[in-house]
Amino acid sequence: MNGSANINGRATVEQALARLNFKPRELEPGHVWLAGAGPGDPGCLTLEVLAALGQCDALVYDALVSPDVVAVAQGAELFYAGKRGGQPSMKQDDINALLVRLAREGRRVVRLKGGDPYIFGRGGEEALALAGEEIPFRVLSGLTSGLSALAATGIPATMRGINKAVILATGHAAGTDDDVDWTAIARTGQPVVVYMGMANLPVIAAKLLSGGLAPSTPAAVIVAATTPQERIVVATLATIAEEAAAAGLASPALIVVGGIVAMRAALGG
Amino acid sequence: MNGSANINGRATVEQALARLNFKPRELEPGHVWLAGAGPGDPGCLTLEVLAALGQCDALVYDALVSPDVVAVAQGAELFYAGKRGGQPSMKQDDINALLVRLAREGRRVVRLKGGDPYIFGRGGEEALALAGEEIPFRVLSGLTSGLSALAATGIPATMRGINKAVILATGHAAGTDDDVDWTAIARTGQPVVVYMGMANLPVIAAKLLSGGLAPSTPAAVIVAATTPQERIVVATLATIAEEAAAAGLASPALIVVGGIVAMRAALGG
Repeated sequence: MNGSANINGRATVEQALARLNFKPRELEPGHVWLAGAGPGDPGCLTLEVLAALGQCDALVYDALVSPDVVAVAQGAELFYAGKRGGQPSMKQDDINALLVRLAREGRRVVRLKGGDPYIFGRGGEEALALAGEEIPFRVLSGLTSGLSALAATGIPATMRGINKAVILATGHAAGTDDDVDWTAIARTGQPVVVYMGMANLPVIAAKLLSGGLAPSTPAAVIVAATTPQERIVVATLATIAEEAAAAGLASPALIVVGGIVAMRAALGG
Repeated sequence: MNGSANINGRATVEQALARLNFKPRELEPGHVWLAGAGPGDPGCLTLEVLAALGQCDALVYDALVSPDVVAVAQGAELFYAGKRGGQPSMKQDDINALLVRLAREGRRVVRLKGGDPYIFGRGGEEALALAGEEIPFRVLSGLTSGLSALAATGIPATMRGINKAVILATGHAAGTDDDVDWTAIARTGQPVVVYMGMANLPVIAAKLLSGGLAPSTPAAVIVAATTPQERIVVATLATIAEEAAAAGLASPALIVVGGIVAMRAALGG
């Protein structure tokens, strides 16, 4: 391998990597790295996360991580900690305990999640469990699904003249006592990207409407962004729940509400 | 190069790349890819952006992109479009026109920004200019500085029991007629991450306080996250402007306000 270009002056990704001054940190025995795999496409992995996968001897991974990415950790012992797919799900406390045990055994541990571990990924809880046991850890950010799903489907998260802020929220607890204040969010007038909200989409839409957002506010639901299975339904806040259901879109999916959604048409999306 | 592991069963990043089923898309002549380089550290680059840099023959890049990353595009003609550093700054219209011209010349163009092009990066405007001229383009997401700076400094963007949403906002226009409604943002009770807000930090802090956030709300300013120059000052909303100034922190920097900042101490940050 060398730094020379291939046909037409283009370098392969291997050649590009050789040109980059990147020296990965060493994953030491007994350490845990909490890493994010991004939205789905293997090209969305960061170099740091790729290097981590090559170094680990124990990989604890979620349902949303693609098999292609898990395959990088060949030779590592694999621990599936997903919460979907008909398999018995691991409780968060059990995942925390597993990470602690593997580290105490002197393993080089990577805990890999779809998206980013620190954005609705419960990485904070895992980090707290590790810190409490004095186990050294790092967090390797991944592209968070909400923002990269927007980009992949032609929706800028921010656009001059449309918004000066963007709100990332979870819809998991929508309609319960533990819910976020959707009225207050609506009153900011800023776009909102909702994770884990599909089951509660009718409730969330109703709350945003009662908070003052216009029924005509553009809204979209995005599934499997950046993968060959990517799908998007664009409607309005008044109709998105019905149209997404009619199109058969189901969890996991992202909901986007705000004027930025209308940019998709202008950008040829 | 092969897929076998090196000493101690660990694979190098080159070996890890060889194991990954990643076939980069081809950057065609006359196309423009708007790409994000992430917060600073070359390890935060995505594979897709790395591959793009290897393929381009024209690179238009910003001040916040590290020289190590620019160096990957060896052989490409380089166009500096930064807005700092004492050099004459390019206006956004001129950058848009440059991208259009390079594409029309049949170049393979990468437009590279620090962070993510679609998050306070004006990528939406560039995309709109390209779409208007019917120039094919793609957006390759990068780690947005706000979220990865938090992770790098030990602050989870979301944490169960603390928040159910996180707000990314620009502080660029703070105090002008064009400003975001900080009172409405404060009333959501959710943490806010402010980009480009250092010059207006006293104004922003005052507005968040008048919007109802407690003076004791944890707050931080982060500079150069993920790089060897990384610095952070942690204080309260009442004192952050004064303490960041006293520590000599200046633009570009990120401001974080909310209970999540207090997690840093618990996580050993």
